[in-house]
Amino acid sequence: MGAVRTIDWRNDRIVIIDQTRLPDELRTLDLHTVDDLVDAIRALAVRGAPALGVAGALGVALAALSTSDLDEVRALADRVRNARPTAVNLSWGVDQVLRHLDHGIDAVVRAATFVLEDDVRRNRALAERGADWLAERVPGLVNAHTHCNAGALACVEWGTALGVLRALHERGRLGHVYADETRPLLQGARITAWELGRLGVPHTLVVDSAGPSVIANGLVHAVVVGADRIAANGDVVNKIGTYPLALAAARAGIPFVVAAPESTVDADTPDGAAIPIEVRADDEVTGFAGARTAPPGTAALNYAFDVTPADLVTAIVTERRVLTPMR
Amino acid sequence: MGAVRTIDWRNDRIVIIDQTRLPDELRTLDLHTVDDLVDAIRALAVRGAPALGVAGALGVALAALSTSDLDEVRALADRVRNARPTAVNLSWGVDQVLRHLDHGIDAVVRAATFVLEDDVRRNRALAERGADWLAERVPGLVNAHTHCNAGALACVEWGTALGVLRALHERGRLGHVYADETRPLLQGARITAWELGRLGVPHTLVVDSAGPSVIANGLVHAVVVGADRIAANGDVVNKIGTYPLALAAARAGIPFVVAAPESTVDADTPDGAAIPIEVRADDEVTGFAGARTAPPGTAALNYAFDVTPADLVTAIVTERRVLTPMR
Repeated sequence: MGAVRTIDWRNDRIVIIDQTRLPDELRTLDLHTVDDLVDAIRALAVRGAPALGVAGALGVALAALSTSDLDEVRALADRVRNARPTAVNLSWGVDQVLRHLDHGIDAVVRAATFVLEDDVRRNRALAERGADWLAERVPGLVNAHTHCNAGALACVEWGTALGVLRALHERGRLGHVYADETRPLLQGARITAWELGRLGVPHTLVVDSAGPSVIANGLVHAVVVGADRIAANGDVVNKIGTYPLALAAARAGIPFVVAAPESTVDADTPDGAAIPIEVRADDEVTGFAGARTAPPGTAALNYAFDVTPADLVTAIVTERRVLTPMR
Repeated sequence: MGAVRTIDWRNDRIVIIDQTRLPDELRTLDLHTVDDLVDAIRALAVRGAPALGVAGALGVALAALSTSDLDEVRALADRVRNARPTAVNLSWGVDQVLRHLDHGIDAVVRAATFVLEDDVRRNRALAERGADWLAERVPGLVNAHTHCNAGALACVEWGTALGVLRALHERGRLGHVYADETRPLLQGARITAWELGRLGVPHTLVVDSAGPSVIANGLVHAVVVGADRIAANGDVVNKIGTYPLALAAARAGIPFVVAAPESTVDADTPDGAAIPIEVRADDEVTGFAGARTAPPGTAALNYAFDVTPADLVTAIVTERRVLTPMR
């Protein structure tokens, strides 16, 4: 990603790449207040489970710098935590820093920037582990299907699912990547295609509903996706549209691999049914980028995520281990 | 659909509703020549398997009116036949009329308008048969999921999959319909939502990749779709995005019902693998409603259709019979 990090901490404020502007414009936003941060999270200017973990951590630092009243800091931290309901990482990041609150502002900022730097190390480690796993199982070049964006722009400066593919690419073991456009907000078309282009990875874009045909037609050896939350039983919550790829991979007999940091694994949640699924505004579905496509007044159901049952998940790769829920 | 037919024959020319303009504008197009017709078919101004069958039939009438050289008529008929490669109905419609070519122009026009009127009767019959099938199996109100547009606008003035739902609605047996938006050309968002609104059917739009979650979450009792071609073994070719719904329906244990006229059944093609799948232009995928979304130069693979294997198909309902491929 060159010199610009997806999310960073500079001069006591958060700096993010505004992902709603990609691929047309690479623009950064300075977030001075918790309000700025919550707005940016809700608008998906910053997104992706690992990046949201970092946003949660840095959000507590912003809060602690804004007031010396610790109850007020905790209330602001709760606003950050609740900006999006499904991503467990947001809460995780908040908690990593909040426990240092009694040790003074320097300790808080140090804890927050540790989460930031640690994300890079963790993602690099999980990317190499995922690349090892695929390289062992697929002879020659690996062709892969991915969904949404689990790349550098979902993290600080590396990636989870795309990080795995990038690590394969650096080893000369990556063939072709098929990427879903990822309606409604088109993170695949806008962001994943942009990242793959910058990395020099041969890639092809498809509409989401064509992913299962790409898999059925034998064009890929594996599906590699990220996760927003993983339940104790191995059920995986990820961007809407992940579940159909898992169904198709199981039918085709190819691996369905989830690449996500340990912070995504939520041991306190027994299964996917216990995870609240964010439902976003209708108008993301009834139109795009300001253009309405459906007749006025058409109702929509806009699930932001879906649940892939553990029995469809071949492997979950984290920075520490490879989980195989069904073995 | 009120007084306007999707496709009609008036004063020796074809009149169609221009479906690229919906839902913003209900506008008709007069097609005077085979060139006009081929352009309209390629642009999807007229679309849907049954409507394409009628377009094929009326296209031969247009050709026969344009020249008395029968070889030239046959050459023009071939141009109509090849305007889109996957829809078997287009070829079927051409053949229905072409065999009357030696009997003079009146016989040709009579054969063509018979195909037109017959479409209405056939669709009505299959709609009632499909409604019977569902009404017998689902107690109370039927909630259904559908994809693309297999409604009146895919036919002359009734519908296939939406015709089945409309027949249930007239019996007071239809609950709620979930419709996929159907990228890339959004026939679901633009046309199905518009038809359901005019019929007064409660409906909700979802992105294509959310369909499998709607099914997994128990919101519908059945998936009901149309078909562009059905192979001898029961494999079904329909709009891209049909296959993931069939996978999800099988996993959820709900019926996956295909509603299509007999003309869609292609006994000469052994299975789905033998059916050519139309691949359309990249820019339908790399943009949305006229706006470019992917970075410049991004390649796309734009399958227009997918293959649903027969073992995932619960029932195929035609105007004559109910086929259950796996029983």
